[in-house]
Amino acid sequence: MKKILLLGAGRSASSLIKYLFDNATAEDWHITIGDITISHLEPIVGPIAFAETITFNVHDAKQRATEVKKADLVISLLPAVFHIEVARECLKQEKHLITASYVSPDFLALHAEAQKKNLTILMESGLDPGIDHMSAMRVIRSIKDAGGKLTSFKSYTGGLVAPESDNNPWNYKFTWNPRNVVLAGQGTAKYIKNGQYKYIPYHKLFQRTDAFYVEGFGHFEGYANRDSLSYREPYGLLDIPTMLRGTLRRSGYCEAWDVFVQLGLTDDSYTLDGSEHMTYRTFVESFLPPAISPDQSMAERVSLYLGTPLEGEVMQKLVWLGLFEDTPVGLDAATPAQVLEKILKEKLSLEPGDKDMIVMQHQFGYEMNGELREITSTLVALGEDEVQTAMAKTVGLPVGILAKLLLQGKISHRGVVIPIYPELYEPVLAELEQYGIGFVETERVL
Amino acid sequence: MKKILLLGAGRSASSLIKYLFDNATAEDWHITIGDITISHLEPIVGPIAFAETITFNVHDAKQRATEVKKADLVISLLPAVFHIEVARECLKQEKHLITASYVSPDFLALHAEAQKKNLTILMESGLDPGIDHMSAMRVIRSIKDAGGKLTSFKSYTGGLVAPESDNNPWNYKFTWNPRNVVLAGQGTAKYIKNGQYKYIPYHKLFQRTDAFYVEGFGHFEGYANRDSLSYREPYGLLDIPTMLRGTLRRSGYCEAWDVFVQLGLTDDSYTLDGSEHMTYRTFVESFLPPAISPDQSMAERVSLYLGTPLEGEVMQKLVWLGLFEDTPVGLDAATPAQVLEKILKEKLSLEPGDKDMIVMQHQFGYEMNGELREITSTLVALGEDEVQTAMAKTVGLPVGILAKLLLQGKISHRGVVIPIYPELYEPVLAELEQYGIGFVETERVL
Repeated sequence: MKKILLLGAGRSASSLIKYLFDNATAEDWHITIGDITISHLEPIVGPIAFAETITFNVHDAKQRATEVKKADLVISLLPAVFHIEVARECLKQEKHLITASYVSPDFLALHAEAQKKNLTILMESGLDPGIDHMSAMRVIRSIKDAGGKLTSFKSYTGGLVAPESDNNPWNYKFTWNPRNVVLAGQGTAKYIKNGQYKYIPYHKLFQRTDAFYVEGFGHFEGYANRDSLSYREPYGLLDIPTMLRGTLRRSGYCEAWDVFVQLGLTDDSYTLDGSEHMTYRTFVESFLPPAISPDQSMAERVSLYLGTPLEGEVMQKLVWLGLFEDTPVGLDAATPAQVLEKILKEKLSLEPGDKDMIVMQHQFGYEMNGELREITSTLVALGEDEVQTAMAKTVGLPVGILAKLLLQGKISHRGVVIPIYPELYEPVLAELEQYGIGFVETERVL
Repeated sequence: MKKILLLGAGRSASSLIKYLFDNATAEDWHITIGDITISHLEPIVGPIAFAETITFNVHDAKQRATEVKKADLVISLLPAVFHIEVARECLKQEKHLITASYVSPDFLALHAEAQKKNLTILMESGLDPGIDHMSAMRVIRSIKDAGGKLTSFKSYTGGLVAPESDNNPWNYKFTWNPRNVVLAGQGTAKYIKNGQYKYIPYHKLFQRTDAFYVEGFGHFEGYANRDSLSYREPYGLLDIPTMLRGTLRRSGYCEAWDVFVQLGLTDDSYTLDGSEHMTYRTFVESFLPPAISPDQSMAERVSLYLGTPLEGEVMQKLVWLGLFEDTPVGLDAATPAQVLEKILKEKLSLEPGDKDMIVMQHQFGYEMNGELREITSTLVALGEDEVQTAMAKTVGLPVGILAKLLLQGKISHRGVVIPIYPELYEPVLAELEQYGIGFVETERVL
């Protein structure tokens, strides 16, 4: 019997838990699920012989040591900041580890020791990062194997609301931590275009979007991620002239979001004076130049200040949020970003019965036999219900499949590893197809 | 005989040194000037009996102790970050201290001990901060004494080039650390207007300026400083509905500077890839969206991207800087802000013979006898030559006068003090008038 310790049992773990349970008997697994609160899992796990839940406190060094010791493989879906302590314990006790989070410098420092101890610390194994690496590498490899030379790679991913549940003018609902959505893009986005490094400051980010179309799902737009370039080396694309990684939204979202950025509403670096007495309206007032005339409506002032038409779609989105109404904010000592998050959560949260949607699109430009060609590879994953969401499936299933491969001894890479090798991505992408998570490829000569 | 230890003998110390020398005989002073390099002072100080120079290293704890011990009063014009070590030594050895820098939290922590030891640590005693406090408090006090109630206080200061040396389209030259000018305004500016807190994000700061006019000197504009509100308490204006402190420039400067901000050229948070191979032109290219057509000039692209007219004054200022030319930058691993500073220094530095100018304007709104009234109080100080600059005079003279008052026993305030008390500002403002540094007041009923 192989023992799996799964740390972190939040919403996004549901599909992973289901996958582990579905495979437990055939694979002869015992699964221990630990989190700071686990009561929501007891009805599911209670009657199952091969699984148990434990209250787990990642800051309790003794418990960390005890539980890791019992396991053959540890999977961590805890918040990213807690992974490193788990990883150090795994190294100490010589256990494999899988997470869906980015490789941080802390983790890189563990690479040599993990290799020496013949251990695999498999990171970036969820959706983004995760499926993005796997699906992109499969195409990049096939282009190279066919003798093509990559000239451009753009890749966009977005967590959105499914068309059937899309009933607001933003065409968006939070399917992920709203705070991260509010703070997204702060800093400077960096990419490369025709060999020229490009830098987009935050206040221009949501104005410089790319538009694209997905057959059957309509129009989308993407804004650049902070760092599009660090994967050039692992992807074997160090000399590629154009590379950009971005976040995908429905068309029109970015132009409206830019109003928040321009006003300063996404700033998380200071607290507002008297936020406890603020309404949505006085919150916005704090960021507007003084009115020229008392007859001006707030919408007119925003329109004039930012040059967005009063009767346009952007303004309709803002009005729909109730941004200009005297609704109390009800937050003490809040930053602008915290107030904005509160306002948005009132209107953009998933409602009971709502389904989510993940869209990922890679665009590869390459030269072959003197021709310029383009491959577009697109994934659309839809949530089944409020538990088996598209987000939970696309994060959890690749982690689960990789866990199975690792326990089956089918993964030979050691050290701190991301899933960019055929040994990892081929079986994962193949099994994901069985769950309806597959890419549609189109190719054309330019 | 009283012994003065002056630490820091850079350019801005010239007027203070002259003042101390001019008063040394009458006041029976001995003056020791210490800095890390002092060779430039030897020709001046060498032949003078009451003064000497020493090579002084502020990081040398032993030397700090030895030199402070010999002094009756220490004046520090060192970079602000070094003051605190000097201050701790002064406290230990029970010596008074004067600086022209802001009171930092480190200094606030010394207040009680300084009071207990009957010592004065006199801070913010130069121009801005310094003369701004003194001149504003004199008017505020006179309004209050006459029974007026302040409703609005705005105050702007700028270091500029004198009209006779103003020969470029920016109407600006660096009279202060260029790096600080490039980074000025980053963060969020905070002020209060009609009782409503207002926040201006950096990317809107140079668009939200106030315009004003100084008789005999023409048109100016001001942008808000980061914190306009922290002086409400020391000024006794806690309930004032409108208060703003700002930086003053010639009209048109801010609109052109905003191009740098919008493009992202003032960012100091990351280094550019390959900055050592950049030219001014490729530097700007890094921040522009890709060209729509190869026929577009860079000026056309900037014009289109930022909505600034191709034939307008803003574009003329950019072209005059050579921003679109293939001039090598010549900096390794530079941040955008460092590259911009290099470019600007080529064109906006003071030339031999150039004179500088300080402009400060306070605008007070108040109610008295049922009338709304306004007092405008304006200082224009012109440099005499390249040594006795307006900046050196307006920073150095108030420090020197306060040093004299302190050694004469005419300052009774103890602890960490800023010059907001009549005992300090009345004699300083009176003596400054003798040096031609005086405010012109105008008053009108609104």
